[in-house]
Amino acid sequence: MVESEQVTMTHGAGGVVMAKLIEEYVLPYLGGFKAEVGLEVLDDAAVVNGIVFKSDSHAVRPVFFPGGDIGKLAISGTVNDIAVLGAEPLALACGFVLEEGLPFRELKQVLSSMKAVCEQAGVFVVTGDTKVVEKGKLGGLVVNVSGIGCRSKALDHNLAMVRKYRSSFDSRWILDRNLKAGDQIILSGTVGDHGLAVLSAQEGVAFGSSIKSDVKPLNHMITKAMEIGGIVSMKDPTRGGLANALNEWSEKSKVGILVHEDKIPIREDVKVASEMLGVDPLEVGNEGKIILGVIREMAEDVLKAMKNTSEGRDAEVIGEASNSLDLVALKTLVGGKRILPMPIGDPVPRIC
Amino acid sequence: MVESEQVTMTHGAGGVVMAKLIEEYVLPYLGGFKAEVGLEVLDDAAVVNGIVFKSDSHAVRPVFFPGGDIGKLAISGTVNDIAVLGAEPLALACGFVLEEGLPFRELKQVLSSMKAVCEQAGVFVVTGDTKVVEKGKLGGLVVNVSGIGCRSKALDHNLAMVRKYRSSFDSRWILDRNLKAGDQIILSGTVGDHGLAVLSAQEGVAFGSSIKSDVKPLNHMITKAMEIGGIVSMKDPTRGGLANALNEWSEKSKVGILVHEDKIPIREDVKVASEMLGVDPLEVGNEGKIILGVIREMAEDVLKAMKNTSEGRDAEVIGEASNSLDLVALKTLVGGKRILPMPIGDPVPRIC
Repeated sequence: MVESEQVTMTHGAGGVVMAKLIEEYVLPYLGGFKAEVGLEVLDDAAVVNGIVFKSDSHAVRPVFFPGGDIGKLAISGTVNDIAVLGAEPLALACGFVLEEGLPFRELKQVLSSMKAVCEQAGVFVVTGDTKVVEKGKLGGLVVNVSGIGCRSKALDHNLAMVRKYRSSFDSRWILDRNLKAGDQIILSGTVGDHGLAVLSAQEGVAFGSSIKSDVKPLNHMITKAMEIGGIVSMKDPTRGGLANALNEWSEKSKVGILVHEDKIPIREDVKVASEMLGVDPLEVGNEGKIILGVIREMAEDVLKAMKNTSEGRDAEVIGEASNSLDLVALKTLVGGKRILPMPIGDPVPRIC
Repeated sequence: MVESEQVTMTHGAGGVVMAKLIEEYVLPYLGGFKAEVGLEVLDDAAVVNGIVFKSDSHAVRPVFFPGGDIGKLAISGTVNDIAVLGAEPLALACGFVLEEGLPFRELKQVLSSMKAVCEQAGVFVVTGDTKVVEKGKLGGLVVNVSGIGCRSKALDHNLAMVRKYRSSFDSRWILDRNLKAGDQIILSGTVGDHGLAVLSAQEGVAFGSSIKSDVKPLNHMITKAMEIGGIVSMKDPTRGGLANALNEWSEKSKVGILVHEDKIPIREDVKVASEMLGVDPLEVGNEGKIILGVIREMAEDVLKAMKNTSEGRDAEVIGEASNSLDLVALKTLVGGKRILPMPIGDPVPRIC
């Protein structure tokens, strides 16, 4: 990026362009501090002195969309980012930037869904801050939720089970870089729901009431999965969708990933809407799904435990990590193989 | 506030109106979780399982102002909010909301001052997030910085010194509600600098180059003061200025505060500019100052230690807590007394 360039919508959309922004601007200035899991690792959260720490700003447009709103999204997003490291969310902090003219009725609705999701996840907001900006194109409000988390018994059990099969495993947390050839890739449910729900709301297209965002906190499902054990990597495929998440894993773990296209759960109406609107459901963000890399011997049991939860009932083993390739490939329905590249950015603007 | 009402600029400006928003909307939905220092306490930061936790979004306009910018402000703000509880800042998280069209040159400038302030404060960004919103009235970017902190030796020493003189003192942290009659009120330096610097930039009025924001991290000065000890309350007088901070103390500690007007350090050019622009320098936000409530017997030594630091060289004892009144009063230059009320809101919009 040359100095004369400007920030574009794609710089906030996950994928290749955002990664370049972080690599060329954020890391050279803010990187360099040696934490247990620090900024350079670019994982879902950081770890400092045993405390898991994460911050996420949400600027989804519209603020209310089928299946959720910015409040539900902001709480779930931070809870999930902490939980995918294997940590137990401990407390949240909330920073609002409100737009002048926002009806209190709408603020109340957002706060009310934040409260509901906090109760569902069993974690609460302990501090916060409110700013107001002039009426303009903010689109109502921006919500930042940061959170802290700590080790849990389930995490310790999970890692003990990993070490039973992989004695060399020395990570104290569940990280993107931990994937090894042979690990099974589990996807916790259908992809594309959130992206298509938000896009349909943005475009004013209604697909009946069928397509709803999957936004939800996943910490309880993750605990159930860790109580079985054997999970080495875990990630929520948000901006840039499944394609982005798998490519991040592959790059960080330096291992290929082969995914069976027919195993990826996608709702029929999401497929149809994706074709209509010209987006790839594998590239749009999800807010209530995770992918897991699991020791082969434990994968079936983890899958079973997940299928027993409401959040994971559609879970599937969709593929495995492999040394016979060094990128992410899809084994297609007709038997061929095609590369699933890192997307340029999420095709849906302001998806979260 | 009735349901049909809307958010106004004043709802983000500290003071009476923002307090009402928090009391009527935020607390009923997000309050209720019993933390060591929780949301209801409305202190500068929260404490959960011994971890001090704070989040603050910054939407200052313009992004660059005399003496600082949004990056310096965001890092300093969170560092200071953690430090005034007596904690040592441990790590920061940063959430950017960028406006489409922001020149990379400006982003680089903001990141560069964040880096400089982090180094100055000795604390670093370990995680973060970036979103982009369409070109509009955001005014460049909004920066959220959240942070975690922990107990320090200086805090333990400080509290031991407090207990020497007040055996009933049972707070583990330096909180707004700890003030008691007789405690001396120290102000760490001149007030009004930040507010007038930002206002002059907003109005396009230049007062030579004389008025600059005081924005800076204060954790090292606070450590020096705690190493003397005897500090019961500490607060940074940001939105709503000194008037807001003193009134919050008085309300939370249920004690009056008498301040000697002639002891409040104000720069001559800030006084002149305040009159010109029609604002009260006691009501505008500061970003590099703190007020301290100190056990009477320790106050002179704490003051001396503060005056030995560059951040506190203009510190003064400006008054004391008193049971002979139940609000904040100014003893004026001509010998009278007048109430210093809680401001409606900071007179400068988007001051931080």
